[in-house]
Amino acid sequence: MIIDTHGHYTTVPAKSEVYRKAQLETYERGGPITKGSFEISDDEIRESLEGAQIKMQRERGSDLTFFSPRASAMAHHLGNVLTSTYWAELWNELIYRCCALYPDNFVGLCMLPQAPGVPPENCIPELERCILEYGFVGLNLNPDPSGGYWTDPPLTDRYWYPIYEKMVELDVPAMIHVSSTCNPVFHHTGAHYLNADTTAFMQLLQGGRQLFQDFPGLRFIIPHGGGAVPYDWGRYRGLAQDNGWPHPAELMRDHIYFDTCVYHQPGIDTLFKVVPIDNILFASEMIGAVRGIDPETGHYYDDTKRYVDKLGLSEADRYKVFEGNARRVYPRFRR
Amino acid sequence: MIIDTHGHYTTVPAKSEVYRKAQLETYERGGPITKGSFEISDDEIRESLEGAQIKMQRERGSDLTFFSPRASAMAHHLGNVLTSTYWAELWNELIYRCCALYPDNFVGLCMLPQAPGVPPENCIPELERCILEYGFVGLNLNPDPSGGYWTDPPLTDRYWYPIYEKMVELDVPAMIHVSSTCNPVFHHTGAHYLNADTTAFMQLLQGGRQLFQDFPGLRFIIPHGGGAVPYDWGRYRGLAQDNGWPHPAELMRDHIYFDTCVYHQPGIDTLFKVVPIDNILFASEMIGAVRGIDPETGHYYDDTKRYVDKLGLSEADRYKVFEGNARRVYPRFRR
Repeated sequence: MIIDTHGHYTTVPAKSEVYRKAQLETYERGGPITKGSFEISDDEIRESLEGAQIKMQRERGSDLTFFSPRASAMAHHLGNVLTSTYWAELWNELIYRCCALYPDNFVGLCMLPQAPGVPPENCIPELERCILEYGFVGLNLNPDPSGGYWTDPPLTDRYWYPIYEKMVELDVPAMIHVSSTCNPVFHHTGAHYLNADTTAFMQLLQGGRQLFQDFPGLRFIIPHGGGAVPYDWGRYRGLAQDNGWPHPAELMRDHIYFDTCVYHQPGIDTLFKVVPIDNILFASEMIGAVRGIDPETGHYYDDTKRYVDKLGLSEADRYKVFEGNARRVYPRFRR
Repeated sequence: MIIDTHGHYTTVPAKSEVYRKAQLETYERGGPITKGSFEISDDEIRESLEGAQIKMQRERGSDLTFFSPRASAMAHHLGNVLTSTYWAELWNELIYRCCALYPDNFVGLCMLPQAPGVPPENCIPELERCILEYGFVGLNLNPDPSGGYWTDPPLTDRYWYPIYEKMVELDVPAMIHVSSTCNPVFHHTGAHYLNADTTAFMQLLQGGRQLFQDFPGLRFIIPHGGGAVPYDWGRYRGLAQDNGWPHPAELMRDHIYFDTCVYHQPGIDTLFKVVPIDNILFASEMIGAVRGIDPETGHYYDDTKRYVDKLGLSEADRYKVFEGNARRVYPRFRR
């Protein structure tokens, strides 16, 4: 089985954005915020997926995608906790419906109703609902709900502990994933996403020893190939050595996983050269940040399976990357 | 000749920090800010350099370093424009003295008296002084004087144009280099530096066509191997293609250069595999972020010449990376 561990519902019908626009307008003018609905039909869901993610799964040879709300749409910096709560609930319900309509193709990961400056306790009910009632296997955790001003504490701060306690109790990992940005210096998919990956890893390198001692069962996925980390692996090994922090590979072992959302062969080569094979999860983020065909290869940039196939991995290692590691990191996925 | 294009005076005598502490204390209590002096003698400079940067140049086989104030010490987020002005002047004067004491070893790059929210016009007199009077060949430009909250506009904004006009007039390039951070989410050398590199490149990918049309002679060095960019080269090629921006290599040609401050062989391999050889400058940032010896190689992590030597470049390409490109990017360096 080939599990794509990173996919967002980027082809969502436009009605979700119509809802959001109206919700935020109501919020801005101080009107009453009610939950309401996206009013998206099953047929509209089918239409949005069958010619897109499902078609590409078939064409590219992946079996199943861990599927979550569109990352850029989370936009925790907009509105307040209440708008964020309804928005997260509706999005997670939509993902649940995708998974129910296509149980062979999708398994859910939820978004949380985070808001800048709001300790993440408020997210626990929605996390429990998604894991226990909807059968989701993990969550996306936004380390910067401010959308590019980075006003919340590092991930190693006790600020985040309540959500970690619940994650460990439910035995689910979090993919660290920021959203769109309201800071004009950061392009979201070209800078903010990668910066967040690098930042999160560095926070864990500095403070992970204590954090993972406090939560031995805590697991994070750092997407987009781990940001700048594999390319700068020597810097991280050296910083760890100079400062008495754990060796990056040692730190990662039971706790941190990078995915293969790196869109060219030399990048994937670097990833596999430095990061332990047990800590790499296959993923493509299809359909995501980059949608074109690479003229250098004649294939989609984000058809990352091709790059992994070219590595010449042993059968045992292929199994780890395409399936085994995902089953270990997401133990609630049992199929 | 082997030119190390990226070195900071990290071994500066502690007196500079004593000065800074007193200056900021005076500022905090509203006392009168005067320029004063670091009170560092020539012998103290000699002592701080001979057993360190100069010894390592000799041991590692580089001839000369483009030398600038300690990057983390710039700290434009502390104090105000006046404290920043005196601090920059004193630091640049100190670099000038290093260059005067060791003209064969060091060539100066200046820091600027930037401050968050202050348009960079104020930096022009100090830039002119350093280039015209001190013979410096370039400058370090901080894209985030806020120290990790990213409150100033992108580098493509007209906000920065006055400093670009002066750079073009003086025919000097800027190394894009942030400083220490007051935002606890960002470790400075492990996250903020690399994020700034990635961010700057992405800003230029989005807005560079207009910027470089407005300033055909504008040149930037993005240090630390270009942040996450070479590792994610496919993402940048794909984003450019999807959005009608220039191909990254095309954009870089006469305007953007990455250095070789990447501290392991696989990273350097990736850099040279994707980035045009004309846009790579040799550098080590010695003595900098990572000071130890890599147990995997038995050599210093930041002895980057070894990684470049292992690439098996042609003589013509070696010349470009170690000398020729630097002469082209820094035309005021004539030796």
